[in-house]
Amino acid sequence: MKLCRFGPAGSERPGLIDADGAIRDLSGVIADVGPAEISPEGLAKLAAIDPASLPKVDGNPRYGACVTGTRQFVAIGLNFADHAAESNLPIPEEPVVFQKWVTCIQGPNDPVTIPRDSKKTDWEVELGVIIGKRASYVEEADALNHVAGYCVVDDVSERHWQTERGMTWDKGKGFPTFGPVGPWLVTADEVGDVQNLKMWLDVNGERKQDGSTRTMIFTVAQIVAYLSQFMILEPGDIITTGTPPGVGLGQKPEPWYLKAGDVVTLGIEKLGEQRQEFVAWVAE
Amino acid sequence: MKLCRFGPAGSERPGLIDADGAIRDLSGVIADVGPAEISPEGLAKLAAIDPASLPKVDGNPRYGACVTGTRQFVAIGLNFADHAAESNLPIPEEPVVFQKWVTCIQGPNDPVTIPRDSKKTDWEVELGVIIGKRASYVEEADALNHVAGYCVVDDVSERHWQTERGMTWDKGKGFPTFGPVGPWLVTADEVGDVQNLKMWLDVNGERKQDGSTRTMIFTVAQIVAYLSQFMILEPGDIITTGTPPGVGLGQKPEPWYLKAGDVVTLGIEKLGEQRQEFVAWVAE
Repeated sequence: MKLCRFGPAGSERPGLIDADGAIRDLSGVIADVGPAEISPEGLAKLAAIDPASLPKVDGNPRYGACVTGTRQFVAIGLNFADHAAESNLPIPEEPVVFQKWVTCIQGPNDPVTIPRDSKKTDWEVELGVIIGKRASYVEEADALNHVAGYCVVDDVSERHWQTERGMTWDKGKGFPTFGPVGPWLVTADEVGDVQNLKMWLDVNGERKQDGSTRTMIFTVAQIVAYLSQFMILEPGDIITTGTPPGVGLGQKPEPWYLKAGDVVTLGIEKLGEQRQEFVAWVAE
Repeated sequence: MKLCRFGPAGSERPGLIDADGAIRDLSGVIADVGPAEISPEGLAKLAAIDPASLPKVDGNPRYGACVTGTRQFVAIGLNFADHAAESNLPIPEEPVVFQKWVTCIQGPNDPVTIPRDSKKTDWEVELGVIIGKRASYVEEADALNHVAGYCVVDDVSERHWQTERGMTWDKGKGFPTFGPVGPWLVTADEVGDVQNLKMWLDVNGERKQDGSTRTMIFTVAQIVAYLSQFMILEPGDIITTGTPPGVGLGQKPEPWYLKAGDVVTLGIEKLGEQRQEFVAWVAE
């Protein structure tokens, strides 16, 4: 099952993608795609619905982030050995954990703002894990039972802020618009083996990242179990699980960053695609 | 004005502290103390109420966190020069930013859980800043206009997880119960000069921290303006602004950490006091 949120920012409606790829309007059934609706009970209720019984949505509406009510946007760093190498950092012995401010979350195709004075705005295609069931001290073998589904995340990053402005990474990861999430929450049962999905990212049509979740150092199950020792994961929380090589920071012969007018397209097998135009910051 | 939330966890009611220190029940006026109620307009409405017209609350109910709906719990590290020294770290040239997971927020006097296998659970009395008005790219001179009020925060920390488990600090700061907030949100007008408040913390009745917001490296106004370059601050967000020296990590002749049965009491001038019993982790 593919769930989405469609319509203008701030007044999205819940939707379901049918077998033909069309959006079916779920707003007669649920108010939104939030923590309650993506719980195991909530998903079971939705799975029982015949998509053909729902109104078909005409045209090509905007997609919002595929889940609302996210309170924690957790991020894993350096989870691909070759990306650690291009970042000139050692392969981590355990997951590197940071976070993206929840106020950076936006729709998958909304424009991304290059911050005022930014020189190092960068891209990162990542697998997003959406929690469906509270997780505290869960074992690896049980961890995937706490996952509602998966989505595409562009973990947009400002490298100067991340690594040259004092000790921790959080500054460079959560500028407004730096968290495109979606287009769909694809439920875990439909994804199947989450550790074998192709992932890619292009800048202005040129392939920059070409990887697979197969080469992640820590699997989704390991990450969920690991995090649950340090924090409570709740329904609606998103974990973005690290990027394969090919980011701007790692370009040869020298790093190369985004400028206004650049277009980033990215996708993950079974999870859909995103497209972002990068735009200059303008005073509010 | 002092606002609070009182009653059993999960069903707190909004309250106001009257001139005699008694709680007056605000639940006939507002549903809770959340983002809308602590906006400039929300606070103006509450300030117009005569506390004597509100029902007096009998007994000594539990306090919840003094604000609800917090989506971002931002933390500043090493903001007192002598605490940086006791941590064997240089005085920062700009604020060190990390975060506490919002799922760690709890009432000011609720027990704090020492995590399973934790050896280095530590205390930190801190000034909490509660945002009342959205802040993005605000100037230092205007920054305090975005603050609704202040509160006491115990930035409970697991030092091993914070500093010895891989690059970033977030792991050690957000275990469930590690975020006591309150007892009151004291509005900015009642606090006056926020950079001249005594702050203290005792463990089992023995003074460990004895400081003042006067010796903060970066002021509240500087911190709010600084953060607003990297993220959007929204009403209900909490910024905890760093701790003076005297944490367990800095004890002489050697570091000393909390164990089950220890009692931590702490307070800040004008902002009230907290008391936490530290308890062992028990499987759910």
